[in-house]
This record gives sequence, C-alpha cells and structure tokens, in this order.
Amino acid sequence: MNSIRQPARQARGDATRRAILEAAERIFAEAGYAAARLEDVAQAVGIRRPSIVYHFPGKQELYDAVESDIFASMHAFAAERTAGEADAMGRLTALLDAWLDFLVNRPTAARIIQRLIADVGPRGGNPVEFSETALADIEAIVKAGVDTGAFRPIQPIHLVNAVAGGALFYVCNGRQLGAARAYDPADSVELAGFRALVHRLARAAVTPA
Amino acid sequence: MNSIRQPARQARGDATRRAILEAAERIFAEAGYAAARLEDVAQAVGIRRPSIVYHFPGKQELYDAVESDIFASMHAFAAERTAGEADAMGRLTALLDAWLDFLVNRPTAARIIQRLIADVGPRGGNPVEFSETALADIEAIVKAGVDTGAFRPIQPIHLVNAVAGGALFYVCNGRQLGAARAYDPADSVELAGFRALVHRLARAAVTPA
Repeated sequence: MNSIRQPARQARGDATRRAILEAAERIFAEAGYAAARLEDVAQAVGIRRPSIVYHFPGKQELYDAVESDIFASMHAFAAERTAGEADAMGRLTALLDAWLDFLVNRPTAARIIQRLIADVGPRGGNPVEFSETALADIEAIVKAGVDTGAFRPIQPIHLVNAVAGGALFYVCNGRQLGAARAYDPADSVELAGFRALVHRLARAAVTPA
Repeated sequence: MNSIRQPARQARGDATRRAILEAAERIFAEAGYAAARLEDVAQAVGIRRPSIVYHFPGKQELYDAVESDIFASMHAFAAERTAGEADAMGRLTALLDAWLDFLVNRPTAARIIQRLIADVGPRGGNPVEFSETALADIEAIVKAGVDTGAFRPIQPIHLVNAVAGGALFYVCNGRQLGAARAYDPADSVELAGFRALVHRLARAAVTPA
C-alpha cells in the first residue's frame, strides 16, 4: 500500500510547495522582503506556518527559492525565444522581447526585480546569485555583436541600465503614475507601442555610427 | 534677551530638522519604508526619538517630508538647467541630463524613487503626490515637441519608462550587479559614457521617422 500512496503524497507535497512559492512571490512583490511575513504566506495558501517551514526553513530560504525560480524561468523563456535567431540584432531584439513578455505576464517578478535593485538586504553578499543568468545572457549577445562588428563597442551593463531595464518600469508603473496616467501593461495596443519603442532604442544603442 | 535668543533657538531647530531629514533619507533609501525605524533615524542624528516626533509626528510624515524634498529639489535643479534651452530637443536633453546629474549626486534619492515604483505602501492613495512635478516637467517638454512637429507623436510615459528611468538603474546598480561588474556611477568616464547613450536614445525616441 505504501508504494501506491507514496507518489500521491509526493504529488500533494509538490503542489503545496508550488502554492507556497506562488503566494510568497505575490507577497514579496507587494510588501518587499523586510515587511513580508511567513504568516501571511501561510494564510494565503490556507495552511499553517509550520507547514511552510517543512518546505522552507525560513524567510530567507523562501525568498531565495522565489528569486531563483523567477530567474530560472526567465532564462529558459528567453533561451527558447532567442534560439532561432542567427544574427546579433535579431538575438538582442528577441531577448528584449522575451524579457518584456515574461515580465508583462508575471508582474510580481518585475516588482521583485525592481526591489532587488533598490535593496541590498535579501541577496546580501552576492546580489547576482540568481540574476547572473540574465546578465550573462545579454552580455553574451552584446559581446558577439561587438566582436563581429555588427554592434558598435558598447558596455553590456549600459545597455541593461538604459534599455533593458525599461521593461521593469513599464510593468511596475501601470498604477504608480496617478489615475490620469494609469495604463494596463498587458493591453495589446499599449504593449505594441512600448515594444516598438524598445526596438527603436535597441537599434540606436548598438548600431555602429 | 528673548528677542536675541529666539533666532538662535530657531536656527538650532532648523538645523536639527535638516539633520533628521538627511538621516531619514539615507535610512529610507537603505532599508525601505517598511523596515525603516524612527529609532534608527534618531540614533543617526544623535538625538532621542521624542525629538524627532517634535518635528515630524510619525514615520509617514517623516517619509513624506523626505520624498517631498527630493522631488522639490529635483524640479528646481531641472528648471534651472532647462531654462536656457530654446528648442524641444535641447530642453529634453537638458532635462534628462539634469535628472541624471541630480541622481548621481544624490544616490539616496535614486534609491527612494526606485523603491517608490515598486511600493504601493508609502504613497497610498496618491502615488504621484510629490513626483507629479517631475512627470509634468517631461510631459510639457514632450507635448511642446510633438505639437510643433519637432518630435514624432510619442507618449511621454513611454519616454519616462523607456529612457528617463535608466538614470535610476545606472545610479542604483553600481554595486548590485556583482563584484565583476561593479562601477562608480559618479566616475566621470563612466558617467560620460552613460550620458552619451542616453542622448542617443532620446534622439532615437523622439526624432520623426
């Protein structure tokens, strides 16, 4: 009997773990690391605090799992979208599009990354423990473009700060600029307009003079 | 005697208020609104908590004073830098330069604005109570440029998210991208490179096709 029940119990455990991660992502996004409480995560999932601790020993471990999942998912999503692109500009555009679409569809991730840039706290000694994959992705594309002469010499980090980061503001600012300026980042017309601007900026940033 | 001592006492009070605001800006920038404590601000100034409460009734009021001061200072700084510019592109570039220089020189302000975009909390019902001046500044310049045909039709908020916001990432990310990518936002060569990119992006964003 044990051999039959074991997989079911395992599946239940996985579902609980997944539900905890989803609730935690929402709460870390809304409240920030410092103000987020395991009790609130437990309540959102409909379990008791000790059930969280069974899966994640503490707030730091839970936060780490959330941030790790965000960047692993974003990396996988971007890898699929850039794989078919042969030239440097196509790869860069596909990467920026992938990040934009990923963040629009997962605004809690955008808010957590936005916080990560302001916060020294949660990632302490290694701020890029999980975001390293995203930075390495854009660095590889920019380096290949510069090396082949398709791009002018440009620091990848300047491109991250000046162009790629805009997707975070676009997603986070929908309700943060006052009622008269409110917009829905997922609205298709709004998104198409912003995407066209990002493409225009990316070309301007890397095109040799 | 009172008439002589009164101004001195007044000046001391103003100096204390200024010292509280400066310490609070640093602590709100580092810890965020939720985690910031009046006790820490008092300790940083070298006074006791009740002395803060004499000037600012509570954390919300203290935070409001900090945010109000940031945006009032930024607006005044930008007004001076844009005043001499006659054409739309000159005014836009001067505004973006002014914001970049202001934030590089006051990184605590950059961090607080970065948090403001992620946080719904501190500004509650009116997220643009204090940032309205900055948004109105760029909207006026973009509208004038579009109206005269100097700029293509572009939504000012897209320009805010895609171009102007980059200054926040540039200032906040100096130590947030890992040791191998660390840079000093105030370094003159680094800043000149980033500024040139911002100018290039601004031109690309608004230049009619």
